[in-house]
Amino acid sequence: MSFESTPESSPKGLLLKADQIAQKFHSEIKETLDTRPRPPKLVGILSTSQAPSKYYAEFTRKLCEDLGVEFVLKKTGAALRGEGGKEDERFDEGEGVEEAIIEANEDDGVDGIMVYYPIFGVQQDQYLQQVVSPFKDVEGLHFKFHYNLYHNIRYVEPKNLSSSSSNPKPTPSDANSVANGEDVPPPGTVKSILPCTPLAVVKCLEHVRVYNTILPYGDRAYGKTVTVINRSEVVGRPLAALLANDGARVFSVDIGSIQEYTKRPRLSSSTSLSRKYYPRHVVHPSTFTLQECLAISDVVVSAVPDAKYKVKTEWLKDGCVALNVAAEKNFEKDIREKASVYLPAVGKVTIMMLLRNLLRLQQYRQVP
Amino acid sequence: MSFESTPESSPKGLLLKADQIAQKFHSEIKETLDTRPRPPKLVGILSTSQAPSKYYAEFTRKLCEDLGVEFVLKKTGAALRGEGGKEDERFDEGEGVEEAIIEANEDDGVDGIMVYYPIFGVQQDQYLQQVVSPFKDVEGLHFKFHYNLYHNIRYVEPKNLSSSSSNPKPTPSDANSVANGEDVPPPGTVKSILPCTPLAVVKCLEHVRVYNTILPYGDRAYGKTVTVINRSEVVGRPLAALLANDGARVFSVDIGSIQEYTKRPRLSSSTSLSRKYYPRHVVHPSTFTLQECLAISDVVVSAVPDAKYKVKTEWLKDGCVALNVAAEKNFEKDIREKASVYLPAVGKVTIMMLLRNLLRLQQYRQVP
Repeated sequence: MSFESTPESSPKGLLLKADQIAQKFHSEIKETLDTRPRPPKLVGILSTSQAPSKYYAEFTRKLCEDLGVEFVLKKTGAALRGEGGKEDERFDEGEGVEEAIIEANEDDGVDGIMVYYPIFGVQQDQYLQQVVSPFKDVEGLHFKFHYNLYHNIRYVEPKNLSSSSSNPKPTPSDANSVANGEDVPPPGTVKSILPCTPLAVVKCLEHVRVYNTILPYGDRAYGKTVTVINRSEVVGRPLAALLANDGARVFSVDIGSIQEYTKRPRLSSSTSLSRKYYPRHVVHPSTFTLQECLAISDVVVSAVPDAKYKVKTEWLKDGCVALNVAAEKNFEKDIREKASVYLPAVGKVTIMMLLRNLLRLQQYRQVP
Repeated sequence: MSFESTPESSPKGLLLKADQIAQKFHSEIKETLDTRPRPPKLVGILSTSQAPSKYYAEFTRKLCEDLGVEFVLKKTGAALRGEGGKEDERFDEGEGVEEAIIEANEDDGVDGIMVYYPIFGVQQDQYLQQVVSPFKDVEGLHFKFHYNLYHNIRYVEPKNLSSSSSNPKPTPSDANSVANGEDVPPPGTVKSILPCTPLAVVKCLEHVRVYNTILPYGDRAYGKTVTVINRSEVVGRPLAALLANDGARVFSVDIGSIQEYTKRPRLSSSTSLSRKYYPRHVVHPSTFTLQECLAISDVVVSAVPDAKYKVKTEWLKDGCVALNVAAEKNFEKDIREKASVYLPAVGKVTIMMLLRNLLRLQQYRQVP
């Protein structure tokens, strides 16, 4: 008889699938949809022949059908290969994607646009993300939303979404709402849209009680130390900023450097003793190594797009929460020997955040 | 007696320094400045301790003083090291740069903002470029200007610069002006701002007669084949698009792929025989190798930030124009054995384009 599989002899950490977390949002979205006079329309734009993007597009379609969201998949470029008979070679990767975005921007019947990345590469994809109208940007990748996130501006006037020259500032009512421990947009404002993947990670961390609901809204990650491995503009940097704006001490790790994100002043800084904390996170280089960061981190989020990259289990703090955001497995097989909770993927929560954004944007466009 | 230095025995190509090309713009700018009631004010933002950026900032200052442009250098972060006494280590690379941009955006006395890149890396720097108000973006790096460039939209209404939701389209008058062979903005519009480095390359190519002034404006590079080595969003891609929009056949080369940019339809395309050319360039993958591109290129522009990278002289077409945009020397020592004209650098023309943009933006802000 073996004892290996009994909880007593092998007290492994909890394996938490994203489905369980997604379910709550699935129900919420379905309820909201029932109150809408017409279902929102989401346009997916697929312009490459990459298998993960095709799979993700198919997954979006099924989920939308299931929920009652209207989904139209617009294929351009290499996504048309295999459908055009003999002339397949005419279709290039990414061909026509910008035109498809512009068409969807201009179509009043379209409430949201999602583009299946990667297409051209980091820089040109970042250009494309600005082509999507902020009023239809369900992925939350437009500069305006990143700006608001980095500046901890949580509520915006819908009309400001169409202005590029005057970036908003936190309003007194904005600060009041957060200070009151609420998350209710002041009159005349709506919630800014957050990028889906960082937001999904936050929702997962709320689910596993890393966010402390006894603390006031806007500071519920206070007391937690988080390491985020990756500092891209799509995942790592906005995630580190979100968590730090919510009160956490965050180590942002990439190949070249380690930075610390926090809204609390450094203890050595004599000028800021009078302030409880900065209105938004500040960033400083850290002198810690990755091993030192991991040793004190309550949460480790890894998003490294490299199958060979592994976070060393032996470096982790016993009982930490480990969350894998990459398509590849960034944690070692024995992760649950050290982690109290292990989330191997967040994709199914990400798509729920995207649909939540869709429902919001459908309303924002109706504000005069 | 040696014959080596006589033109007859060593018929090397012409070595053309940027100073000669910059001089004409220097005079133009000085003349325009004399007509302005007050000199424009340019704010330079230096936030790193990198030597090339410090050097460039010093160069900007001297040039502005010489011309009579008001220049204020705002140092933040690591640029303050060496000026703060014992506490130098407090100053981080890039610290405070975003705040400095926002302050300059909001200061009505500031007409233009230039930020000395690189700071954080490609993605985060691209974010910062969106923080600069389009009304003060003398470098032409804002998304709106890139969008206009890629879409061959040459004239814009100043008020459109502050809108992020509705991207402009080419207007009939826009097309008319180009068709008439003029470059005069239709009433109510102004010229869109072009990014400085790609524009400087175009000005150099005009100077060396690659642009044929006998052809109508908007198509003066027709008949020329150009290879551009580099496809970044700051230099290579906008340059390839500019040249293709002006009629050239352009090969855009980066590490991973070679693309062809052209506004003329492919000969094999039966559907487009009725059109003279597309309103803007289209992009297709090329089956050519770099060697094959170079063999048929009248112009080769290289912008590879790698001292080890060299364009092989033996691959070049005899009598081509070679233009080096990188800080490093991308051409071999014997380049003038093959090239009819060799331009080793464009930096001094780039800064003239920046000052021209400054003069324009000073006016655009005054349009009601």
